[in-house]
Amino acid sequence: MSQCKPFVIGVDMGGTNTEVAVVDARGNISATASFKTNECRDFEDFIQAIEKACRRVMGEVGGPQMIAGIGIGAPNANFYTGNIENAANLPWKGVLPLGEKLSSILKVPVAVTNDANAAAIGEMTYGAARGMRDFIMITLGTGLGSGIVVNGELVYGCDGFAGELGHVRVYKDGRKCGCGRCGCLETYCSASGLARTAVEFLNTRPDESLLRNLDPNVITSKDVYDAAMQGDALSKEIFEYTGQILGEALADFVCFSAPEAIILFGGLAQAGDLLFDPVRRSMEENLLPIWKGKIALIPSSLKLSEAAVLGAAAVGWKAK
Amino acid sequence: MSQCKPFVIGVDMGGTNTEVAVVDARGNISATASFKTNECRDFEDFIQAIEKACRRVMGEVGGPQMIAGIGIGAPNANFYTGNIENAANLPWKGVLPLGEKLSSILKVPVAVTNDANAAAIGEMTYGAARGMRDFIMITLGTGLGSGIVVNGELVYGCDGFAGELGHVRVYKDGRKCGCGRCGCLETYCSASGLARTAVEFLNTRPDESLLRNLDPNVITSKDVYDAAMQGDALSKEIFEYTGQILGEALADFVCFSAPEAIILFGGLAQAGDLLFDPVRRSMEENLLPIWKGKIALIPSSLKLSEAAVLGAAAVGWKAK
Repeated sequence: MSQCKPFVIGVDMGGTNTEVAVVDARGNISATASFKTNECRDFEDFIQAIEKACRRVMGEVGGPQMIAGIGIGAPNANFYTGNIENAANLPWKGVLPLGEKLSSILKVPVAVTNDANAAAIGEMTYGAARGMRDFIMITLGTGLGSGIVVNGELVYGCDGFAGELGHVRVYKDGRKCGCGRCGCLETYCSASGLARTAVEFLNTRPDESLLRNLDPNVITSKDVYDAAMQGDALSKEIFEYTGQILGEALADFVCFSAPEAIILFGGLAQAGDLLFDPVRRSMEENLLPIWKGKIALIPSSLKLSEAAVLGAAAVGWKAK
Repeated sequence: MSQCKPFVIGVDMGGTNTEVAVVDARGNISATASFKTNECRDFEDFIQAIEKACRRVMGEVGGPQMIAGIGIGAPNANFYTGNIENAANLPWKGVLPLGEKLSSILKVPVAVTNDANAAAIGEMTYGAARGMRDFIMITLGTGLGSGIVVNGELVYGCDGFAGELGHVRVYKDGRKCGCGRCGCLETYCSASGLARTAVEFLNTRPDESLLRNLDPNVITSKDVYDAAMQGDALSKEIFEYTGQILGEALADFVCFSAPEAIILFGGLAQAGDLLFDPVRRSMEENLLPIWKGKIALIPSSLKLSEAAVLGAAAVGWKAK
């Protein structure tokens, strides 16, 4: 059937934005749409928004009869069941039957996976991880997600939820996390974690900073990046602090799967050397001697908006 | 050729003891030998000791012509190269060509793997992990080793060294570890780690304890176990402390591979409920909500001395 249906839809559902794209078999993106996840009032509202976006992009390539399947990368999505299950970074709790709902509305097969797993599949298929059999993808968005590839295969675990490295605890009595526990890596090393660090530094330290011109309630990682690029010392230190913690955690992750590379992806990874330098330094300092100088730390080679949708789209070809 | 050679030799090399066994295709052990690893003066001395032990057990089944291969589970052994490389828990540093040396002396093919990986293979082939596709084996001996199985395959990583969970850091400024860093899990949760806790508790606390009758320089985990079984409150607390830290770490490991089960193995795991109760309680307390009540924590179902040699023996069939 897929010869007759030359496209899939890839959906990258994040805590903040949802991106939708029509993709062909070679990874070319033909049409895109997006909406704010966090402006949807409830799950039903979200389903309506995703339906609308899918219909719009399908319309641009000739309608549903041109679509072989829809692949969705979403927080805590379960590849085995098609459900989103108790996602820490979404306002809608419980088990959400995303795959089933959307396929029954659109009459197109839908497959879902963890958004970070989708990014890893995208990177393995089209990006910096081509040909790698062992790597770890870290997505630095609103939260911190991860997709782990071992022996050339994604690690799903016994229940489909493997790869929740954002919820490894780095400080036992640390920051409160959306998952209900404290000290999770993503409360420090994510776009929102970095913003929390900014507020914490501004509240507890006397340093001059460009950030003091901003309302601390709405400071974003982008604000800190912009200030650091203007030479703001406190903002640079916020990136150092974030990178130090992330590097220590990555050194521990290497103990697990001894990956050839760790790939950083997502909004915060766009900060470039400002983030990569301290992460790399801290990772090297903290690695077991056998791995020092051996684990590549690299940025995604795909465009920020494309890796996740391409990975999701790749899953779409497998939807039944 | 292996039809003509009905046996393999399995070698379990630990920091303290080395166990050698002749094993047939069904996992029956025909002859065994053992010696103290830590009484060997250097690597050459160790090679002589292992040669002697192998010759003795081979003699009991008809000589080298009956042996299809030798499989060795050893600290930091590299499945890909046959070398032991910079093992933190051995006195002999650098790269030790164990596979090559032994095969040239005995004229029998030799394959090596990490001792904890060998234990995991043994458990998967003959023990509690039969039929499991995703599990983590934790070996609690002199150090803390691990063998990780994902999608039914051992995780070796890009270089053969994956699964060093004993060197995940649990306290950033914690106890000095043999690897040169501080705060590694195995400095707390291993036979030697538990003994260190005992000495630390005795030095810093006023409590009465049966352990005060012993020379603190030579207290072992067995001493603490014996005292706890006699009702000694401080000794029970030492197991609680150890179990608490191990449970927290296991909860983090679940974030990586979402295993069906975690299997505890080795001398310290013989402590039974004294260890399993606090580990299970702490792991459950610290698991992400999606995994609470779902991850089995079970003891190895193989005899302590057999799991590792059986796993090593299974590797022996693949030696070339």
